[in-house]
Amino acid sequence: MLDALLRPGSVAVIGASRTPEKVGHELVANLIESGFEGKIIPVNPSADSVLDLPCYPDLKSAEEKIDLSIISVPTKFVRQAVYDSVDAGAEAIVIITAGFKEVSEEGAAQEREIAEYCRARNVSLLGPNCLGLINAHHKMNASFASQMPQPGGISIFSQSGALCTAILDWAKARQLGLSKLISMGNKADLSETDFLKAFAEDEETKVIVGYLESVDSGDQFIKAAELAASKKPVVIFKSGVTQAGSKAASSHTGSLAGADIAYGAAFHRSGIIRAENFEAMFNYATAFAMQPLPKGDNVAIITNAGGPGIMAADAVEQCGMQVHALSGSAASALAAKLPVAASVGNPIDVLGDADPERYVDAVNAAQNDPGTDAIVVILTPQAMTKPAETARAIAECNRSEKPILACFMGGVDVMPGRDELVAHNLPDYTSPDRAVASLRAMWEYAQWLNRPPRVVRRFPVNRRRVERIIQRHIRSGQYQVGEAAAKDILRAYEFEVPPGSLAMDGTQAIEIAERIGFPVAMKIASQDIIHKSDMGGVKLNLADGDAVIDAYDLMMLRIKQRVPNARIDGVYIEKMCPKGREVILGMTRDPQFGPMLMFGLGGIFVEVMKDVTFHIAPITENEAMDMLESTKSYALLKGVRGQASVDLAAIATSLQRISQLVTDFPEIAEMDINPFMVGQMGKPSTAADARITLKPQDN
Amino acid sequence: MLDALLRPGSVAVIGASRTPEKVGHELVANLIESGFEGKIIPVNPSADSVLDLPCYPDLKSAEEKIDLSIISVPTKFVRQAVYDSVDAGAEAIVIITAGFKEVSEEGAAQEREIAEYCRARNVSLLGPNCLGLINAHHKMNASFASQMPQPGGISIFSQSGALCTAILDWAKARQLGLSKLISMGNKADLSETDFLKAFAEDEETKVIVGYLESVDSGDQFIKAAELAASKKPVVIFKSGVTQAGSKAASSHTGSLAGADIAYGAAFHRSGIIRAENFEAMFNYATAFAMQPLPKGDNVAIITNAGGPGIMAADAVEQCGMQVHALSGSAASALAAKLPVAASVGNPIDVLGDADPERYVDAVNAAQNDPGTDAIVVILTPQAMTKPAETARAIAECNRSEKPILACFMGGVDVMPGRDELVAHNLPDYTSPDRAVASLRAMWEYAQWLNRPPRVVRRFPVNRRRVERIIQRHIRSGQYQVGEAAAKDILRAYEFEVPPGSLAMDGTQAIEIAERIGFPVAMKIASQDIIHKSDMGGVKLNLADGDAVIDAYDLMMLRIKQRVPNARIDGVYIEKMCPKGREVILGMTRDPQFGPMLMFGLGGIFVEVMKDVTFHIAPITENEAMDMLESTKSYALLKGVRGQASVDLAAIATSLQRISQLVTDFPEIAEMDINPFMVGQMGKPSTAADARITLKPQDN
Repeated sequence: MLDALLRPGSVAVIGASRTPEKVGHELVANLIESGFEGKIIPVNPSADSVLDLPCYPDLKSAEEKIDLSIISVPTKFVRQAVYDSVDAGAEAIVIITAGFKEVSEEGAAQEREIAEYCRARNVSLLGPNCLGLINAHHKMNASFASQMPQPGGISIFSQSGALCTAILDWAKARQLGLSKLISMGNKADLSETDFLKAFAEDEETKVIVGYLESVDSGDQFIKAAELAASKKPVVIFKSGVTQAGSKAASSHTGSLAGADIAYGAAFHRSGIIRAENFEAMFNYATAFAMQPLPKGDNVAIITNAGGPGIMAADAVEQCGMQVHALSGSAASALAAKLPVAASVGNPIDVLGDADPERYVDAVNAAQNDPGTDAIVVILTPQAMTKPAETARAIAECNRSEKPILACFMGGVDVMPGRDELVAHNLPDYTSPDRAVASLRAMWEYAQWLNRPPRVVRRFPVNRRRVERIIQRHIRSGQYQVGEAAAKDILRAYEFEVPPGSLAMDGTQAIEIAERIGFPVAMKIASQDIIHKSDMGGVKLNLADGDAVIDAYDLMMLRIKQRVPNARIDGVYIEKMCPKGREVILGMTRDPQFGPMLMFGLGGIFVEVMKDVTFHIAPITENEAMDMLESTKSYALLKGVRGQASVDLAAIATSLQRISQLVTDFPEIAEMDINPFMVGQMGKPSTAADARITLKPQDN
Repeated sequence: MLDALLRPGSVAVIGASRTPEKVGHELVANLIESGFEGKIIPVNPSADSVLDLPCYPDLKSAEEKIDLSIISVPTKFVRQAVYDSVDAGAEAIVIITAGFKEVSEEGAAQEREIAEYCRARNVSLLGPNCLGLINAHHKMNASFASQMPQPGGISIFSQSGALCTAILDWAKARQLGLSKLISMGNKADLSETDFLKAFAEDEETKVIVGYLESVDSGDQFIKAAELAASKKPVVIFKSGVTQAGSKAASSHTGSLAGADIAYGAAFHRSGIIRAENFEAMFNYATAFAMQPLPKGDNVAIITNAGGPGIMAADAVEQCGMQVHALSGSAASALAAKLPVAASVGNPIDVLGDADPERYVDAVNAAQNDPGTDAIVVILTPQAMTKPAETARAIAECNRSEKPILACFMGGVDVMPGRDELVAHNLPDYTSPDRAVASLRAMWEYAQWLNRPPRVVRRFPVNRRRVERIIQRHIRSGQYQVGEAAAKDILRAYEFEVPPGSLAMDGTQAIEIAERIGFPVAMKIASQDIIHKSDMGGVKLNLADGDAVIDAYDLMMLRIKQRVPNARIDGVYIEKMCPKGREVILGMTRDPQFGPMLMFGLGGIFVEVMKDVTFHIAPITENEAMDMLESTKSYALLKGVRGQASVDLAAIATSLQRISQLVTDFPEIAEMDINPFMVGQMGKPSTAADARITLKPQDN
């Protein structure tokens, strides 16, 4: 995929320049210096040659079929350069030039136009406002960043060009090999989704890494990411997570950052490993590129120093993995080889004067021990320590069955050892907690790969009925669906809803109450009244007809006093709900990622403790149960202090029904069932109140 | 302080060796190579000279007054070497040799004996089982670590010797200057407390840094740390925070790690900046050593790349500081100097082709802007970027009024710039979030320095009465103080407690109830029954005499059935509490740091949500209010959805009264008031139930 972009035979540089330090000069120079084996065609009307290559006044005069055209001319000439490129047969175009979406509305319009022109002709477009791209395996530096990385298994796409230069410089310092490096710029055409797809299929790519400030098409992104992650690890660092960060994002690339919580849910869903910062992005990528995945979470720690061993043990436990001691036989076999003062517990302490052999004995013991899933090797530069020899010895005994991550602590004396580690595909970290965090990322991914198959259950429902209700509301411009209609929708999707009906006067209220049976609740039905109970619009536990008529008349009086202009649809008379634990089930539609299901315990748990979880719809039964379990207040549902558990399956099923409802009806912008009364096992669970908001339709 | 240890004139090395790589050889070699200007006296019966220095068979034959003696002989000879050293006038001794507390009970006993011997003779003892020490300003490497750091302002004590070697190696790589580096080993005598005091007074020390696995004397540690922190920043990295980590700690240096929560409270109280890992320890220390403290939390970000600017903005917001845009006039003055495409918002984007001058303009604008408190400067290595020149230019315009922290991202091209930064006392970090975390540590410390004076209020109480109750319980070996007596104690400390009294039979129960007034509660009084209500030992809301006698008889029947052997002290009859919000006030005594006060909302908030805060007693009013405010559920106390606030001052006062009670009576091991019923403003707040546990006394 994207062959013309990633592996072109011939490349034109429109705007090639003879002046060193000019971007148009750097582009040609970098192509030459990277050892590009295809044809390079500089284009510039005012130069005969650039860096000893013949230069053409325009692309037509070159009389060559080109695969890739790199455009670095002033903004106003870009459009013509695109036309020329397409005419010359270019199947891929990179626009380096800035001055489009990120500066003005006019620029945005021009950018859209160019993108549409390319799309219509099936030409891939990278940029504008980007650094270009590098393919180390194709010996092609088609960017104006001067460093060329050594070939390796990590492919990167980045929404920040400047970050690419930092990445290159970092990779060089760590002697880390890269496969492709793509600066996506304004993403007028090609975006993260395309590179997820391309890198997933690219055999030279072992790990996909991305830096993102926003995602353009949430739905396609999730699909592409999930597919890519099922083939190889995808590590993404997303910035702009806070308000301040997002503000900076929108002024930077003119993109609007989605809500961070939605990104979290989308990444979780699609198996993306989320890096919390720039360093973690590298740390994780290195681990994935160099080591096999762990089969479990039991970690053996090998160290020549007590303190750092404790640090590693702390980190393992804090991230939810297990500090694992060797089994009895493995431990005693190792003990026989190590000095008496050494410890074969966990951490395994090979002592301050450990030579490479002792490290090898310990690593072998951990490799032999069936209970050990992963190994962290720590070294501090003590008097007798031989960092380089130790690194080589570990590399030699490494059977590549279990991940081995190293932490050679220090900065100068240990450097030969750190270099040897990386040269032998053993990832090395500056402190034990970083090694453990990377291991934890591997374990998380391993679990995701082994997740149960996603089966979304579909319930038999009365979809037509909901369609009619929604259409009726939309036709009358009523986007707030009142309680009565919302409950009709829920009934159509087989929710347990208390019997109830809308009364238009007091007499009718009594009739309804007598039909459904006492005690009843009474709630004002009006799209103009949001906080019903604050306005005197709710009465509960009415035991007989007298109570109903009194409550009705009083309610009408209060509403007239408090919300004189409210349009009243009537009063909703409903049988009182059976008691239960109050939870909230909801959905809000994220502009990027679509329907986000919400779950939390009612009242203060949501409002004060913010103890809620989100998941992108559609949702499976496992995922629904996960949502329950990942709240802190889950213990209350399971029952504390000898209380019985509530009907957890009833909540999970309801979340799945909401999932089906909001997937069936994109017209639903938001909804919540608050409270949903969950009974104990065998007792009914009921939607006590519900609210649905529809999306105003464009046409 | 500790002059003989830190700045000796003459140093003996007992166990000096001619064999390279032996510790006794390295010690002498390192002293010589570090340029030590005092006298070095090697001692070894089987050598005439070591490294060209005359060597003596024993210390006596040297006939020299020595200040510091460094002992590196086999464990069994250490004791004699200590005696000889003291006889030769040594005022400080370092025992390098291992094989004491960390290996056996016998070793521990020998270690104690040696420490007592030294203490009785006023001789400072460092170790055993340590690496030694370094004083860069005194040109003295009295350790067997071969690297000698350049002189600087950071002094370090470490409970791990191996970590010292990593620290030295790291400092070398970063060209970071150190003042003293102390490996504390087993801490038989000198410990963190001593070095906190010594470094606090040491003029060459600007920042104190410590690595700890445990603290020996919590009380003295807090005092020394608070005093030191009031003079200069104290950064401590404490490992062994989790169960696994603690286990590793106890098998490592034979020390028991205190509970992490107590360490957190102790550090918070004494103004210690806690580093969460090895790297943070350095990052924070570097910032403190090089830059002035911020006067506020408004951060200006200057960058030549959008992405990293967003990362910094994210980090600033996430850590609770403010992303600050320049004021209008400062912004427009800067805008006039920068290219049109640059952004003078925040982050200030000086663009990818920024030269040093543009950085200087931006830094000056931020320095001139009165609203800016701190500056983060980010650089990525783009085509036109000049890292070294930019670093020098920033250093030149730095007025040292506001902290400037840099992040030059990358690994090779930016290195000249990073080196220049450090050479000019500008701290540099590998990623924007690290720079911001360091700034946040500075801001936290600045706030601590400006904290209001700690005034611990003392309430008039009946201390004698409590003394009598406690003594009575201790004499009779009754360490669980029952509710009746616990409430008497609370009354003596002027808590609001419902009137109540112990009844020995049904008739008395009715009498008491009639005296105090209905409705009453009735609770079994027995040290053998912990969960009173589960055993049928609690009845509430008894409205009249009949109810009281029924409840009494039923309770006696149930208790006899369910806890047949319980010793019954009677039944506690108490007036029902006025309703209120249930909170829990408590105290548990940490083995290291003493009384830890606890606060949380009652029931599920403590049990399920673990939403509690701790503070070390004695506590001030501000600190008590801080405890309330730092729970998530604080919003409930303040009143959500138009509810009135509860009487916050009543809770704060009660915490202060508990603080006074547990400070007055170290015999109290644990106590809690659960629930404490807080009324709304102007309504009473009452201790509804209370439990006190006394410490079994040794004599």
